[in-house]
Parts: sequence; C-alpha cells; structure tokens
Amino acid sequence: MKRLGIALLFLSSVCCAQGSGFEPASTNVWGAQYPRVDSAGRAEFRIKAPSATAVKLNFWSDPKMDMVKGADGFWTATTPPLVPGFHYYNFVIDGVDVNDAGSHAYYGGGRDASGIEIPEPGATYYLPREVPHGAVREIWYFSKVTGTWRHAVVYLPPSYDTQAKTRYPVLYLQHGGGEDETGWIKQGHANFILDNLIAAGNTKPMIVVMAYGYAHHIGYVEPDLAGKGFGSPEMQKSMQEMFSAFDDDLTKALIPYVDANFRTLADRDHRAMAGLSMGGMQTFQITFNHLDTFSYIGGFSGSGGLGMMGGPPFDTKTAYNGALADPAAFAKNVHLVWIGVGTEEPAMMHNGIVTFHDALTKGNVKHIFYESPGTSHEWQTWRRDLKDFAPRLFQ
Amino acid sequence: MKRLGIALLFLSSVCCAQGSGFEPASTNVWGAQYPRVDSAGRAEFRIKAPSATAVKLNFWSDPKMDMVKGADGFWTATTPPLVPGFHYYNFVIDGVDVNDAGSHAYYGGGRDASGIEIPEPGATYYLPREVPHGAVREIWYFSKVTGTWRHAVVYLPPSYDTQAKTRYPVLYLQHGGGEDETGWIKQGHANFILDNLIAAGNTKPMIVVMAYGYAHHIGYVEPDLAGKGFGSPEMQKSMQEMFSAFDDDLTKALIPYVDANFRTLADRDHRAMAGLSMGGMQTFQITFNHLDTFSYIGGFSGSGGLGMMGGPPFDTKTAYNGALADPAAFAKNVHLVWIGVGTEEPAMMHNGIVTFHDALTKGNVKHIFYESPGTSHEWQTWRRDLKDFAPRLFQ
Repeated sequence: MKRLGIALLFLSSVCCAQGSGFEPASTNVWGAQYPRVDSAGRAEFRIKAPSATAVKLNFWSDPKMDMVKGADGFWTATTPPLVPGFHYYNFVIDGVDVNDAGSHAYYGGGRDASGIEIPEPGATYYLPREVPHGAVREIWYFSKVTGTWRHAVVYLPPSYDTQAKTRYPVLYLQHGGGEDETGWIKQGHANFILDNLIAAGNTKPMIVVMAYGYAHHIGYVEPDLAGKGFGSPEMQKSMQEMFSAFDDDLTKALIPYVDANFRTLADRDHRAMAGLSMGGMQTFQITFNHLDTFSYIGGFSGSGGLGMMGGPPFDTKTAYNGALADPAAFAKNVHLVWIGVGTEEPAMMHNGIVTFHDALTKGNVKHIFYESPGTSHEWQTWRRDLKDFAPRLFQ
Repeated sequence: MKRLGIALLFLSSVCCAQGSGFEPASTNVWGAQYPRVDSAGRAEFRIKAPSATAVKLNFWSDPKMDMVKGADGFWTATTPPLVPGFHYYNFVIDGVDVNDAGSHAYYGGGRDASGIEIPEPGATYYLPREVPHGAVREIWYFSKVTGTWRHAVVYLPPSYDTQAKTRYPVLYLQHGGGEDETGWIKQGHANFILDNLIAAGNTKPMIVVMAYGYAHHIGYVEPDLAGKGFGSPEMQKSMQEMFSAFDDDLTKALIPYVDANFRTLADRDHRAMAGLSMGGMQTFQITFNHLDTFSYIGGFSGSGGLGMMGGPPFDTKTAYNGALADPAAFAKNVHLVWIGVGTEEPAMMHNGIVTFHDALTKGNVKHIFYESPGTSHEWQTWRRDLKDFAPRLFQ
C-alpha cells in the first residue's frame, strides 16, 4: 500500500513546464524538476530539510557552496556557469554527506553518488544520434583468481550481430579509483562515442570491455588498515595486492573469457588497454608487464610508475623491468602510447602526468600527449580522451 | 588530487575479517563492512552523524526503528531476523531521508535508494551458478511515440549466440511503480532465474525485454498537480496518459524495434507480458487491449482494472471492451493468465489481488493463482512469481 502510494505520489512530482530558461538535468530521475540547468550552464539545486542548521552544495572538485533556507523548509542554491560535462556532487546537511533524490546515482568516490550533466554547446560526439548503435552487454564470469563471480560490461560494435563471421579487435577500458565498471557507459557514454566515431568512418569497429578494477586473490585477508596513512608500508602493500590481483584476474580470467565468448581477434596486435586515473596507472602496469598481450596503450589522467603517489620518479631505463629501456625496440613492438590530461586538473595530477610525459620524452619513447582545454579531473576530459584515442587504434 | 585521495582512502575501508558471524551484505559497495548480515537474517547498520539529534532506520514496509548514538558519532541498529530477499531502506536523519553510502543504489520509490539482500537458506534459483549464462544487453531506441531516446534491458538466452539461426519467443517483463527497467536484473536477478530454469530443462529458452514503464506522448505537457489528491480527476487523467503513452510506446515502438533487431518469433503465440505491481496493472491493460499481440499474461502483485486504486470493481463481462466476456473463446485464444501475491502483503494489496482472482473465477476465466508464503510486496515475492510463471510459457 505504501509502495502504491509512492508510485502515485511520484507522478505528482512531474510538474508544469518552466518558463525560467532552466530545464531539468538529463541526469535526473523521471519527473524530477531539480536540479535544473540553463543554457549558460548554471545549475539550480534544492532539497527539503526543515530542521537542518546548515546545508551546503558540494561539487567534489570545488569549495562547498552555502545553500539558503526558505520559509517552506527547502534549501536552494544557484551556481555560476559550470564547466560542461558530468560532475559528481552531494549535499552536506549538518556535516553528513547526502545524495540528491532528484539525481540518478553514479558510482564514484566509492559510493553511488549524485551527478549532474552540463551540456557542452555544439558537442554531440557523446550523445545518442541517428547512427547504427552497438550493443552494451553485461557479463558475469567466475574468476579462479579471486574465487568470486565478477561483473563486466562489454560494448559490441554495430556490425557485430549482422556480420556473423567477422572477428574484432578489443579495447580494455578501465574506470578510475572509487568508480566501477559501470562508469564508462553511465558517466562516460563510451558506447555513444564509439557509435559516432565508427559511423564517421575513421574508427575501426571494435569490442570494448570494461572490467571491475578491484580484486583480491582468493584467500587473501586484508589487514586492519585503520589509522594507516597513505604512504605507510601496510597501505602500499594493500594497494600492490589489489593491483596484482586485478592484473591476474584480467590476464588469466577475463581475457580468456572474452576470447572464448566473443568473436575477437585474440592476439596482441588486436588488443588495446586504456584507463582513467587509477585505471591509467593499472593500464601502464599491466601492459608494460604484458607486452606479449597488448600493443596499444592509453593513460587518461593516469601515469606510469608511482611518481604521482609519492613513489620514485619514473625512469624509462629501469621501470617495469626495463620494458621501455630500448626505445627503438619498444617502438617496433608497441603501436601506440597515448597520454592525456585536462588543463584544469589539480596541480598534483597535472604535474604527475606532465612529469611522466617528460620522462617518456627524455627516454625517447614515442608517444602522443594530449591536453583537454578547460577541463579538470572529470569525465569531460576522459570523453575527449577516448574520442582522440579510439581512432588511432588497430589502423 | 581529491579524487586520488578518495581512491586511496577508499582502500582503507576494506577492513579485517569479522569474528561475530556477521558478514557484509552482498548488496554492498566494494569494501563496505556495513550493513552486515548474520545467518539468522539479522542485519546491523551504522552511519556517522555526530551532530544529529535523531536517526532512524527505515525499511519501507515496516515501522521505522530508532538508531542509537555512540561516543564516536556513529549511530547503529541491529534488526531482528528479517524476511529473506531484497529490502529497500534508508536512514532518516533529523527528518531527512538519506541513503546508506555502504549500499549500492537500486532504483525504487522514484529514486536511487539503498537496499539489502537477506539470503534465503537453501534458495539458489536466483543466484549465479555454474550453468550457461544468457546475455544481458542494454538497448537505446528512438521512440516516435514519445519523441525521445529510450533505454531498455534485454536478456538473451544462453544459446542465442551459438545457435545463430534459431528464433526465440519473447517475454516483456515490467517493473513496479517508482522502479525502472533496471530493477528486474539488479534487484530481481531475472537473468540468473532464467539461466537456472533453462539449465534445468523445464523452461523454453526465451528473450526477456524489460522496458522503461513511464512515458508521455510527444508534445504532452503535464499540468501542475501540486495539491491534487490521488483520486482527483487531474491525477487520474495524468495516470491514464502515462499508461496510454507506455502502451503506445511498447506496441508501436519497442516491439517493432525488438522484432527488427533480435531473432524473435514475432507473433502473438510467442509473445508474453508480465509485470509487478504497477507493471502488472499495465500488463493487464495492454494485453487485454492487444490480444492480437500477446497470448501469455502475468500479474505479479498487480491486478486488472482499477479496483485496487479506488476504481469500479473488476467485472469480466464489461472490462476491457468485453475482451474476457466470453470465457470459452478467451481460453481458446489466451494460453495463460497467471496472477500472484505474497501472503504478507499489505491488506489493500492482498485484497486487491484476491478480489481480482475472485472476479476471474466468477467470470469463468481460467487462470493460475499463486501465493508466495511469508513474503510481502517485495522482490522475493516477484522472484518466486517469475520462477513459477516462466516454465509455463511457450510450451
């Protein structure tokens, strides 16, 4: 009865057309009028919290913004024009982080968080358009590495179903830290980006596999890390175990599963890997350690080595057991190394990528370096990265 | 930089193994220790809200439970043993509904809400097992009915890829009010239920299409419904428009899309529709009005007619333009009418279904009536419904 009530009440939130120039965000749930966005990219938020003392609006990459309480118990805020793209956010009600019920949830920061899409005027490359659409599939595979069922998302190009004898190259595409395998579709619109690129004729039809980037080896027991700082040996060891378990899961469980269950071209010349942020770090670690498996490599706001994380500076002569030490041999073997960063990313991020770029240049390792103008450590940067990266694959 | 911090902090929430008999719920995000469940089905919750005055735990179908504040600013609660299955819940902090960051989000009640899975001892029919797995696909189709891109989820049976010439019957399977097209996979595990049934050999391999059950005709402008009660003409009209637009979208846009893009058996003898709660009501309205399109019909905790919602009592002689008025002709034409309800559903729900069942019996309309023992208006009822319903299709 209560749920029937919910179903019907729910209708009543679908309200009248607004005349203010503000429209509900595309990231909203059905019928939610807030948050809403105008053509300048300003966004209006509101939340009901009649007994709260202080409510703030928290875009994760910016200082928190005070919201103002009205007589009706609603707190409201209107932002200045925001950078286009997808932004995570939450409300902070008397010190507690709270989702916006008007927004769909997008997994980031280690939880299902609220998000808002600010349109970029004129940019349609990541929107659904009247072109042939690939399929997005969910798969579950049992991993002997982790001893668990694992979930991944697979994009199949538009021709996959109709050209039943064609085999395709594969891009493994990883999310960032605190995100998961759903991010590249839900936040990134990777499927629409690929659909549009393939329709434009400059990108090879390819399969894209988006894996869950967290793993533990079967039987592993995490020690109690309470109170252990980021640089502590315990935390470093925990992170190494996770990276190593994901490396094993990807190369020993997922890739064999994908090659057995989809029509792939199952060799290194037709296999790429890229990732954003933490996924970029995983990409460089995994690909440089498995050059027999991958030959196209991309890091989106994520560097090789652990320089960004307080580790030793990256040196092509010694890193990854010398995989990059001979740049001529490396260039013959590896078809693409691609790194990207947003110009407005936080200094530590931006410097980390630029330092990695400089180290590759110093070591004569041929690579592409791309800067996304005006964007930060956010999805608009990574959508642009994918748009620049994907056409360079498998050519 | 902040997000890198999040990614790493995030690792530290993966804590030591617990010795209490409580284990993190399967519905949790990576690394979250709470909520957790013991073998008796009790659940422990906690949330940090140091400055809150009162925090409650809210299972939607039960009275709210007071949480207790500790010296560390965490509020905690331990439930008595809960009914097995999936339960939506939230915290209420000083009157504001708040998600649990430890839980994944599941779309219900018109928002991405928290949920917890309580295992049912011995029940494996909705879990992933070592049987052939079907594919779960996301599709996007442009609907001329609504003038928008719409998203749906499609289950393809395990043999779909390998038996490239086989065509399959289709079940259209709808979510409830306040839920969406993601619910049958994420909350319901419909894919695992079908995998296990098909592997057991008693269920025909079939395609299952899960549509988004909300729609407006293109150009429709919702009037301001603020202050309009459930029984008001304005609200009834709004609901009729939504049901009618979904009917048109399903029959004029989605079914043609599915028949054009998948290897279906595209006739009424190989097309079924079922739905839960609001989706059940939609199912009866759509199928009884389109008996040229569907021949298998299921209502899971959802009735025909509007008797549950204060409308006139259901009468087989007059309902749906007389579609059921001649029970012999109806029985020859329609292969299955199936209705189910949980014994512990709220009285209005339970009575509504039983009244519909009685009306069908009185009108000599042959049908199956199933009661799920001990479960309420929740997903465990609907999982059991699907398990009983699916093997009866297309035989």
